[in-house]
Amino acid sequence: MLVVIKERATAAEIDAVIARLVESGMDVHRSTGASRTVLGVVGAGAVDPEVIQVLDGVHEVLQITEPYKLAGRTFKPKNTVVSLGDVRIGGDEVIVMAGPCSAENDEQVDASAEAVKQAGAKVLRGGAFKPRSSPYSFQGHGEAGLKMLRAAASTHGLKLISEVMDISQIDLVARYCDMFQVGARNMQNFTLLRELGHQRQPVLLKRGLSATIEEWLMSAEYILSGGNTDVVLCERGIRTFETATRNTFDISSIPVVQQISHLPVIADPSHGAGRRDLVTPMARAAVAAGCDGLLIEVHNDPDRALSDGAQSMYPVQFERLMAELRIIAPAIGRSICLEPLEQGG
Amino acid sequence: MLVVIKERATAAEIDAVIARLVESGMDVHRSTGASRTVLGVVGAGAVDPEVIQVLDGVHEVLQITEPYKLAGRTFKPKNTVVSLGDVRIGGDEVIVMAGPCSAENDEQVDASAEAVKQAGAKVLRGGAFKPRSSPYSFQGHGEAGLKMLRAAASTHGLKLISEVMDISQIDLVARYCDMFQVGARNMQNFTLLRELGHQRQPVLLKRGLSATIEEWLMSAEYILSGGNTDVVLCERGIRTFETATRNTFDISSIPVVQQISHLPVIADPSHGAGRRDLVTPMARAAVAAGCDGLLIEVHNDPDRALSDGAQSMYPVQFERLMAELRIIAPAIGRSICLEPLEQGG
Amino acid sequence: MLVVIKERATAAEIDAVIARLVESGMDVHRSTGASRTVLGVVGAGAVDPEVIQVLDGVHEVLQITEPYKLAGRTFKPKNTVVSLGDVRIGGDEVIVMAGPCSAENDEQVDASAEAVKQAGAKVLRGGAFKPRSSPYSFQGHGEAGLKMLRAAASTHGLKLISEVMDISQIDLVARYCDMFQVGARNMQNFTLLRELGHQRQPVLLKRGLSATIEEWLMSAEYILSGGNTDVVLCERGIRTFETATRNTFDISSIPVVQQISHLPVIADPSHGAGRRDLVTPMARAAVAAGCDGLLIEVHNDPDRALSDGAQSMYPVQFERLMAELRIIAPAIGRSICLEPLEQGG
Amino acid sequence: MLVVIKERATAAEIDAVIARLVESGMDVHRSTGASRTVLGVVGAGAVDPEVIQVLDGVHEVLQITEPYKLAGRTFKPKNTVVSLGDVRIGGDEVIVMAGPCSAENDEQVDASAEAVKQAGAKVLRGGAFKPRSSPYSFQGHGEAGLKMLRAAASTHGLKLISEVMDISQIDLVARYCDMFQVGARNMQNFTLLRELGHQRQPVLLKRGLSATIEEWLMSAEYILSGGNTDVVLCERGIRTFETATRNTFDISSIPVVQQISHLPVIADPSHGAGRRDLVTPMARAAVAAGCDGLLIEVHNDPDRALSDGAQSMYPVQFERLMAELRIIAPAIGRSICLEPLEQGG
Repeated sequence: MLVVIKERATAAEIDAVIARLVESGMDVHRSTGASRTVLGVVGAGAVDPEVIQVLDGVHEVLQITEPYKLAGRTFKPKNTVVSLGDVRIGGDEVIVMAGPCSAENDEQVDASAEAVKQAGAKVLRGGAFKPRSSPYSFQGHGEAGLKMLRAAASTHGLKLISEVMDISQIDLVARYCDMFQVGARNMQNFTLLRELGHQRQPVLLKRGLSATIEEWLMSAEYILSGGNTDVVLCERGIRTFETATRNTFDISSIPVVQQISHLPVIADPSHGAGRRDLVTPMARAAVAAGCDGLLIEVHNDPDRALSDGAQSMYPVQFERLMAELRIIAPAIGRSICLEPLEQGG
Repeated sequence: MLVVIKERATAAEIDAVIARLVESGMDVHRSTGASRTVLGVVGAGAVDPEVIQVLDGVHEVLQITEPYKLAGRTFKPKNTVVSLGDVRIGGDEVIVMAGPCSAENDEQVDASAEAVKQAGAKVLRGGAFKPRSSPYSFQGHGEAGLKMLRAAASTHGLKLISEVMDISQIDLVARYCDMFQVGARNMQNFTLLRELGHQRQPVLLKRGLSATIEEWLMSAEYILSGGNTDVVLCERGIRTFETATRNTFDISSIPVVQQISHLPVIADPSHGAGRRDLVTPMARAAVAAGCDGLLIEVHNDPDRALSDGAQSMYPVQFERLMAELRIIAPAIGRSICLEPLEQGG
Repeated sequence: MLVVIKERATAAEIDAVIARLVESGMDVHRSTGASRTVLGVVGAGAVDPEVIQVLDGVHEVLQITEPYKLAGRTFKPKNTVVSLGDVRIGGDEVIVMAGPCSAENDEQVDASAEAVKQAGAKVLRGGAFKPRSSPYSFQGHGEAGLKMLRAAASTHGLKLISEVMDISQIDLVARYCDMFQVGARNMQNFTLLRELGHQRQPVLLKRGLSATIEEWLMSAEYILSGGNTDVVLCERGIRTFETATRNTFDISSIPVVQQISHLPVIADPSHGAGRRDLVTPMARAAVAAGCDGLLIEVHNDPDRALSDGAQSMYPVQFERLMAELRIIAPAIGRSICLEPLEQGG
Repeated sequence: MLVVIKERATAAEIDAVIARLVESGMDVHRSTGASRTVLGVVGAGAVDPEVIQVLDGVHEVLQITEPYKLAGRTFKPKNTVVSLGDVRIGGDEVIVMAGPCSAENDEQVDASAEAVKQAGAKVLRGGAFKPRSSPYSFQGHGEAGLKMLRAAASTHGLKLISEVMDISQIDLVARYCDMFQVGARNMQNFTLLRELGHQRQPVLLKRGLSATIEEWLMSAEYILSGGNTDVVLCERGIRTFETATRNTFDISSIPVVQQISHLPVIADPSHGAGRRDLVTPMARAAVAAGCDGLLIEVHNDPDRALSDGAQSMYPVQFERLMAELRIIAPAIGRSICLEPLEQGG
């Protein structure tokens, strides 16, 4: 931590700042320049930068270390690969997770699973507990939905991911799924994150609507610090002033995260764009930017979906998208499930 | 709902849109103009506007009713007054809730409570469960903290409000407090909101960092629809591009909410500004804008606070602020605890 | 400038960074700590922090001085008072500038001027050149409009401010007005700002829709560095995700600017809110926050205004607002034109 | 325009709204439903929706036509192709414009031009007039810079684009360049836009930092309505809360613009990302999203650039990027200058 002193600070003010730091167990190195005094602060103590910021005589407090530890490349320089059985997220292959927004009935889940498997997806996605902004909207089928999803995933040789909204749902989701999904609205539900740190299944952590990249990594830190090292980050769009799209899909977060963190990062163009017609170009863009995977809503009959129908792809659109992605991936030294038909269930 | 048809839509496309709406149980009134066709959609059915939006031939779907019901003035034209015993939020008096960010020890809580009571506050605020962006920060003392707060509130004749972060904490918070506080990060923790709808104590619902006013009211709707009609809204700043302040305190939300909702709305200038030196002008501004109350962090020794010290006021600052507010309140026909000393415990 | 070196940087990388800085004419002081090396950079040279930021081995570049000079309190600790004859902006009195969005005809301008004068305004505002987002909207009457405004201002003993959009309009606006207004869209029209630096009339500089406070002060610096020291800043709302109001009126910018700059800062609640019914609470809030003045749209018949009718106040509303402001101003040691009738022209 | 009436509006209020609309020359069709009355408003008159919005009894005013005319696909369904001689922007080929941020000296400009030509660029970019947020930064070499750029472009068989900041610079830029560039800060400099509408060279219009897509198209409308139909749009990043990147590169704007407008849209990943290491992934993403071209800063020695050095690519990076783009373009049925060496000057 560096404490930049005001140009007009008095000697007494500077001494008081130093005393406060030393009292907190820090070592202070003082540099006096022509126009500025700067204090270098190190040591084993703990001090809240914001408390120092408001002391008399302090111009600014600058932090020179990131607040996250386990999530950063300083701690672990090499890429983390998260495995769901033989599906490896963060390796050479771009992993596609696809399926309906929510599990509605056996036929819908099975038909959607079959379609995404045929096109090359490796993981089935689908919601049983749905966070809806209105209390009057469909809230998901709960355990019944999880059963439908598990059956379809097993039938078609897919791994399964589903959202967990609250610690009370962890056991249930763990029983049926290969991976937990934490939604954007829960990115700072710290009680939930801490509990997921004690689970053995991997966690997909979506970026909050107004979360900075640093806050997103701090939320990953909650899970990692509990002992669960299998965290995958997921960009899904941030809130900005633009209203032409539901969110602004921040594709630049992908290379930024890859520089500062070893964790895999995937993209959710369905929520990022919010409109089916934008999912294809945004999915292509995310892969071209270097993401480790995609999370895409595909529904066997999106016009009749109970939720998110407007952003769910038709199976035929998804198939075409996968073909385009297979052209793009080699530009960045990646592949996408090259022979889906042979791998089909 | 109004469905605006594209200028170049074919008759078949329009017919398909109408068929889809009728199938969903809606009545459709078609108006054909020189350059545009518009469908008026009413009826007892339910249809997701986003699904219609992406049908061929549809230019735009416009909603003409608000998504909230119980939270709106259409449902209840008269102001709601939320009572904590004899403290009435939403009446003529501007109610000030003040106290430390977190309960640290008996002396700190008691000294802070005494200070805010003397200056005219009616409710003690203080955290026992703290949502912190870092897993390595102080997370609150839990039940021990609640006990300290309850003791101090009772000693000094104050009501008590404290944050609940998860459904597992509800019983504990309910045992010690007069009012639940839901923090900004939990504004869309729907599991928590739904459960608070079944409690008897009032709920203070903070606006999320990137929540629109409409989403904020929808979260209130979750609580109201569960049967708990005592909800107070709290503006605490939104996230914008400006970095000079931690958040941008959206004071205009106060009159906007008062127009569309009957619920009381208070302001939290401490989090809205994030810096102690800005709390006084922002608190004055919020009262001048017409808020029903304030939530302010006051600490008996903020330089040594375990959390939020930088934005906590010194007792003497708070006393001066209260004096200024007593000048401002009459400009909008309100009062602020005129004789604090006589009312002291 | 402080250059924080990466934890894993090589000695050769650090040497190259130092060499690059020295080559740019800077002195470098190197501090080596347990986990970090930090370079303190001072001197008469010039170096772009962003160039250093991307050198190998550099973790982060931290600036410890503000980019503005003349606009900051370090350069001039005492408040600047900008005088328009006997009207002093930045003194004890809160100065209210009011009038129609645009000058439409003699009667409208005169009636509006009379109304605002009667209620206590000291400066008439009105546009002759209008920046409109559509090329098909009313663009103002140009010189004819300026003549109407000048006549009305002189008749009623008011000073006059009007917007200048381009260097080609400077001479014309200077001929009729007491103060130039630079609109939000032109806050970074550097050609215009530089030219206004050579004028003798004061300049009101509105904050851009997405301008940080630092950028706003840098635009003021363009005018100040040209020799025109009479600059007044004007907050008018920033663009955020919230759509319930046209802009988000960032009232916290008022105390923030007052801390770091000596320039007066006023508020424009008409554009900040964008709706007539919100102007009154936002004007009260701005005065309570400590602004040095207000810029308010008042029209003698707003329902028939050619522009901004929806946010223009009725004269009777404005009169009531002024009465409320007279109650609030003393709370912060200010006054607002106490005896308007006696001071009338 | 649709005017939605409040549920509790009186008959007199509704009549007054209708009278006001008719007075403005509009025809009004009234639809009375069970809970709502809606007025359909059409006709040859002109009425400001915001004026109607604030009338008593009005719940909401909904516009059903876009405010732009010439820029929309309703006016011109087929794609516009903008030609600079034999370089066609908006056709099958993705056109790359590249070069230094500013023209510094003959050698730098020539070396940069040679490098970008060799790698496959078709247009040279470079600034002679630089909009800088600080008055103390390098402001460009003016006409001398334009001469350097023209010489290098001609030598290497490239077209030339350069920024014009003010109407006073139009003649000069027109003399040397094939295309005008309007920067983000000038996107709503309406005086400049109107004048460019009377020029014969094409105009590249960058999106403003906080401009909605609709506002961007309205600025294009200013140029188009003046008679200049050769407008190319350029996405360059918007301002959001995220500070890890200088701007948030809104790649989704590319497909959105392509749906609603016939104008070509290109992307500027250099400004969109603000850091050299992010330009490559963002350029790939923009092409994968379907943009018609790229605008990229390349400098022969970026570490010594006078401006934007941190985001300028090294020639070797640019060459590698072009190779990657040639793999990606076919995925969307596009090509990128396949044989640069044979086409070299």
